[in-house]
Amino acid sequence: MRWTRFRTPPSTTSLPIMTRPGRSTSNVRLLRWEDGDLVRRKDVVTVEEPLEIRIALPSADGLRGETRSIAVTMRTPGHDFELAAGFLYTEGVLPDRGIVQEITYCRSGEAAQEYNVLEVRLRRADVDLDRLSRNVFTSSSCGVCGKASIEAVEVQGCAALPLGDLRLTPEAIAALPDRLRAAQSDFDRTGGLHAAGLFDAAGELVLLHEDVGRHNAVDKVVGQRFLEGGLPGTDQVLVLSGRLSFELVQKAVMAGIPMVVAVGAPSSLAIELAERFGVTLAGFVRGGGLNLYADPGRVRTHGDAGA
Amino acid sequence: MRWTRFRTPPSTTSLPIMTRPGRSTSNVRLLRWEDGDLVRRKDVVTVEEPLEIRIALPSADGLRGETRSIAVTMRTPGHDFELAAGFLYTEGVLPDRGIVQEITYCRSGEAAQEYNVLEVRLRRADVDLDRLSRNVFTSSSCGVCGKASIEAVEVQGCAALPLGDLRLTPEAIAALPDRLRAAQSDFDRTGGLHAAGLFDAAGELVLLHEDVGRHNAVDKVVGQRFLEGGLPGTDQVLVLSGRLSFELVQKAVMAGIPMVVAVGAPSSLAIELAERFGVTLAGFVRGGGLNLYADPGRVRTHGDAGA
Repeated sequence: MRWTRFRTPPSTTSLPIMTRPGRSTSNVRLLRWEDGDLVRRKDVVTVEEPLEIRIALPSADGLRGETRSIAVTMRTPGHDFELAAGFLYTEGVLPDRGIVQEITYCRSGEAAQEYNVLEVRLRRADVDLDRLSRNVFTSSSCGVCGKASIEAVEVQGCAALPLGDLRLTPEAIAALPDRLRAAQSDFDRTGGLHAAGLFDAAGELVLLHEDVGRHNAVDKVVGQRFLEGGLPGTDQVLVLSGRLSFELVQKAVMAGIPMVVAVGAPSSLAIELAERFGVTLAGFVRGGGLNLYADPGRVRTHGDAGA
Repeated sequence: MRWTRFRTPPSTTSLPIMTRPGRSTSNVRLLRWEDGDLVRRKDVVTVEEPLEIRIALPSADGLRGETRSIAVTMRTPGHDFELAAGFLYTEGVLPDRGIVQEITYCRSGEAAQEYNVLEVRLRRADVDLDRLSRNVFTSSSCGVCGKASIEAVEVQGCAALPLGDLRLTPEAIAALPDRLRAAQSDFDRTGGLHAAGLFDAAGELVLLHEDVGRHNAVDKVVGQRFLEGGLPGTDQVLVLSGRLSFELVQKAVMAGIPMVVAVGAPSSLAIELAERFGVTLAGFVRGGGLNLYADPGRVRTHGDAGA
């Protein structure tokens, strides 16, 4: 067994983010039927592969302690360390980034599983792994796993986000999805990837990640900021290429990002969660228009002073 | 605690399918920004609520035995018994429908959670619940939970589907998504629902379900057929409104449905699974064209005899 190590010293304020060597797209042969003809074609599809996330706890003597398999997610390879960190952080397992000693791939001899198992090694054992293992949790677009019961389907340990200084005009918000799309690398080739992007108050892209699962794309974004020490994302906007479900807003709340903008429709629970935690929620942001579903206080309209 | 009972006698060949009293859409107030104006609007959004699925095992003395919480899924209320049955069947927990004694809602006094907890009571205890609880499993569009490891990310206990008699022309396949869309009840109002429909070889709709999660929509379809005794779906086509991930093909394989047709793009693993289990896979079925990614043997082209 070989290990690809990614050590994260606690003193570092900016961590190098490694892109894993896996492929995010794959070539396929297909039969295309169009205008009455069936022809052979080559095309590109999004890669979907399982990623198993393990946590290694330190033992009392400082040596290697217990290792537990935490989750398997179907994801598009790439930025797996960020994905794991974002998943564990937004699930409330990782309290701070100092607890992460290193993240490594655990490569077996089998080529098909190379880079599909990773281990998050912790410095301290004060994590509540049971909140993940008490129950199996499936979700509409998933990612929210391990909640003990329905009562637990709420963000715990989070207060409502302060209004803060973030202000955007409707025009600026309406322009964000096009900027997200323009920055996507693989979408136009495969049509199969969700994108999540973080933008600053000036509408400039801070970072973007793509994945076959929308929750994974958000986990990669939040995880990168977590590893970089960039949370909470007080002055930033999370922009999503798809629909808005409960758990995507939950991840924004956990990351302290006060505005979520999506091309698609929100669910009822996404709106309720945004209202409860003071997240500005914009949906159907397309064709120059948009809907504001919650907390419009961060949207600077023409009637406002300074607009 | 009150119970809404739904008893399923083993001798029944056609079970009444109950629609739960919950709402699938919800009215919201929002601010619409369009053409430079911000106006107040009312709109309709898709309801997303958690559903907890519990299993009650019989005890040795025939009385009420152990009850275990199996999963919580974020879903759109409606056809929850079908959803639970489909989830448990496609996860390999329920070997046959005779094992299901009854499905009931467990309503607490709290109005917000009415109809959000259900219990599947089994006649026999010979089920492998550990396959769900061994591990937390998250998935790109979820639904595939409880796999022990990456090795388990494959359909177990299933042989490749036989070619059978199902044959459709490309024209007939290309027409299916429009028929699905035409039959959808809520989509046009909310823009937030995935649909899954079962069609026969003549292209006629057999049944359709909608949900905020695409895997839930498929579970509802498969679960209804499971409860009706209608599996395997040898002569039927599963039509999906969105993209095609691994687990959706996995559910089709478990249900013995040999053709899957989707409006969106397939992932690499969806194609691999379809190839391995002999499922005809059509993607990008829109605008009169389509792509065949796997097992085109059930597509009758003009060169075929009898076409």
